[in-house]
Amino acid sequence: MTDQLTRASGRDIRPRSADAQLRRRARAVIPGGMYGHQSAVPLPPEYPQFMRGGKGARIWDVDGNEYVDLMCSYGPVVLGHRHPAVEEAARAQAELADCQNGPGAIMVELAELLVGTVAHADWAMFAKNGTDATTVCCTIARARTGRSKILVATGAYHGAAPWCTPRLAGVTTADRANLGHYTFNDLSSVQAAVTEAGDDLAAIVVSPFKHDAGYDQELVEPEFARGLRELCTETGAALILDDVRCGFRLHLGSSWEPIGVLPDLSAWSKAIANGHPLAAVLGSGAWADAAASIFVTGSFWFSATAMAASVATIGALRAENAIEAMDRAGEALRAGILRQAEARELSVSYTGPAAMPYLTFRGDRNHELGSTFAAAAMRAGTYLHPRHNWFVSAAMTEADIAAALAATDEGFAAVQERQTSG
Amino acid sequence: MTDQLTRASGRDIRPRSADAQLRRRARAVIPGGMYGHQSAVPLPPEYPQFMRGGKGARIWDVDGNEYVDLMCSYGPVVLGHRHPAVEEAARAQAELADCQNGPGAIMVELAELLVGTVAHADWAMFAKNGTDATTVCCTIARARTGRSKILVATGAYHGAAPWCTPRLAGVTTADRANLGHYTFNDLSSVQAAVTEAGDDLAAIVVSPFKHDAGYDQELVEPEFARGLRELCTETGAALILDDVRCGFRLHLGSSWEPIGVLPDLSAWSKAIANGHPLAAVLGSGAWADAAASIFVTGSFWFSATAMAASVATIGALRAENAIEAMDRAGEALRAGILRQAEARELSVSYTGPAAMPYLTFRGDRNHELGSTFAAAAMRAGTYLHPRHNWFVSAAMTEADIAAALAATDEGFAAVQERQTSG
Repeated sequence: MTDQLTRASGRDIRPRSADAQLRRRARAVIPGGMYGHQSAVPLPPEYPQFMRGGKGARIWDVDGNEYVDLMCSYGPVVLGHRHPAVEEAARAQAELADCQNGPGAIMVELAELLVGTVAHADWAMFAKNGTDATTVCCTIARARTGRSKILVATGAYHGAAPWCTPRLAGVTTADRANLGHYTFNDLSSVQAAVTEAGDDLAAIVVSPFKHDAGYDQELVEPEFARGLRELCTETGAALILDDVRCGFRLHLGSSWEPIGVLPDLSAWSKAIANGHPLAAVLGSGAWADAAASIFVTGSFWFSATAMAASVATIGALRAENAIEAMDRAGEALRAGILRQAEARELSVSYTGPAAMPYLTFRGDRNHELGSTFAAAAMRAGTYLHPRHNWFVSAAMTEADIAAALAATDEGFAAVQERQTSG
Repeated sequence: MTDQLTRASGRDIRPRSADAQLRRRARAVIPGGMYGHQSAVPLPPEYPQFMRGGKGARIWDVDGNEYVDLMCSYGPVVLGHRHPAVEEAARAQAELADCQNGPGAIMVELAELLVGTVAHADWAMFAKNGTDATTVCCTIARARTGRSKILVATGAYHGAAPWCTPRLAGVTTADRANLGHYTFNDLSSVQAAVTEAGDDLAAIVVSPFKHDAGYDQELVEPEFARGLRELCTETGAALILDDVRCGFRLHLGSSWEPIGVLPDLSAWSKAIANGHPLAAVLGSGAWADAAASIFVTGSFWFSATAMAASVATIGALRAENAIEAMDRAGEALRAGILRQAEARELSVSYTGPAAMPYLTFRGDRNHELGSTFAAAAMRAGTYLHPRHNWFVSAAMTEADIAAALAATDEGFAAVQERQTSG
């Protein structure tokens, strides 16, 4: 293992003593040593648990090892780490005020900016978690329709509240009593679920594309999206687009605008403030009264700093043609990775939009080859993930792409070695 | 009204043109013009909707009017606005990193600090909203016990998710199916609810004292707290202390430590990072495995900046004897206000802990006298609330207390005038 590590990396890796020590301390005061999507416990040992910092497309772990970042904090970082304009806007706002007895003027500015940027949006509300946003969308849909049932795609992730968390520990039957399921891109399955919901259908929740963790991704078929829109219009149910993971990474607007399908309500978080904690619900005019009728709030939902960061983020996304930059970097990555796999005669699936790709190996069981690949890429200095889609930021330079491709080639070499030696 | 305004204020109030303009813009892009606990829509017109900034115990609205702050952002600000040590810690962390692929070392430091500060805590988890924390506590309780029922006090506020929000628009029957109710400080009502829950009791959730919005507050009877503890120990249910609103304002530890009652799980948010967005769940060792078994997470739950602010907040609370300072300022306020009311022969209730008081007028209907009082106090430059408990920060100087008392005396004068003229 040590030999392979040295060979694969082609550089000195600092021993992870700081990380190991922090993990020991964490095990004493944090359940399971860590929890949630950022737990490194189930990842190969090459993954550090604790990170020190980042700049642009480069990040450092607590032992000082540097990586090209292809996870972008699991989505929030879209312009690159510590983007100057975003950080300056946040700093300036923080020097004035953040959490007050009422929102700052920046809240109105941001709401106007989102309404002007996202085609279906006539209004905006703000929160802190993606889960807040998806949950608020469902509550608004129920308030307007007076109905209860919510349809979701089987296997889709819409947050980690009891109604949607992927793990059932601590979840009651009642928490899921009003959920119905359909299969992504299968309109007849939606039709069947709509029929089953009868006159109690409040909403259909859908992700812009299928990005279930650990599976090949699937782009949406425009016919499917249009079918959902029609079903919702016919039944009076809300079409809720869960743009938490994709929003502002694929399009400067909601992610189905390029195919011409507009939701009634959309949920946003992650990238909208380039890493600052913010979520948003956007909606069309018909749903405004229902949105005003519910009571949802949080101690920090009106805080100004993350809103200032969001205004700066949207400005920079536009000024820097960031969507195009991410797509271009993602396409270069895709081309290079597919070339590498082909050269080594490895059979892979590289799925999803260019800016949110995911790699699997044909016939891979339990992500074993994926983990071998990811571990070797990590040793070679590129942070990607074996069981979750990756994220490309607009900060990726040609040098970053070249470094990432050098690392993925090490990943393929390790897979090849494993296959020939196994 | 204009005459009275001039008389009561004894100072020039800037016309609220900036606020009025922002409200007009907000009505076009935010449902109802504003939502949640920070909406000024249901408050007297003296309340600005939009705030500009603050320092210590003073705040400014967007038109530049200054107030002594007796709301502290509805609880988060405990050391005063823009506390130097807290802001410096947050700024230094933000310059390194905030939201990354994993937490920073500061997460371990904060978890250790909380475990060392809060008597019942053996471990910590972090989130963003108080609602996250109360909900996670319930999920952990259900995961360990394998039971469903949660008991809450009638009228108590434990957050704004469908299971607990005080307004039922958009809430389904299933969302509340596993709730039982008891009356605060009435142990026999708890016993009855426990009996009704039978073998399905997962947890009892309780606030440190009764602080239901709009009602006289009620301190906890130690016998009641001990009785809850015994019932939970007997039944194996979790005793969950909702310390979101009170935590670190009444005691540097969980709020029932002074009466010697320790919960199994506690929910925290608001004041733990002096306004930076953070929530925490603390628990005793027996509940750690259950906490590790559930899947809860959020895009910004591992972000480092708010955690650095929290470490600095706890340090400053200790270094500045802030709990004592709040109690002392609160007692001076209480003594002064009760003196003023007596001098004007007004019959009032001034309830709750000194640092979280609330004032009502005997026989007041629909908070009419309370609103008259609050509006006059606002005109006189002190920001308090007619239907929600107030919050005293450790930044209150003698001059701030004197200014606040001058304003409350204007408030009493306005009530007296209303009563004699009505």
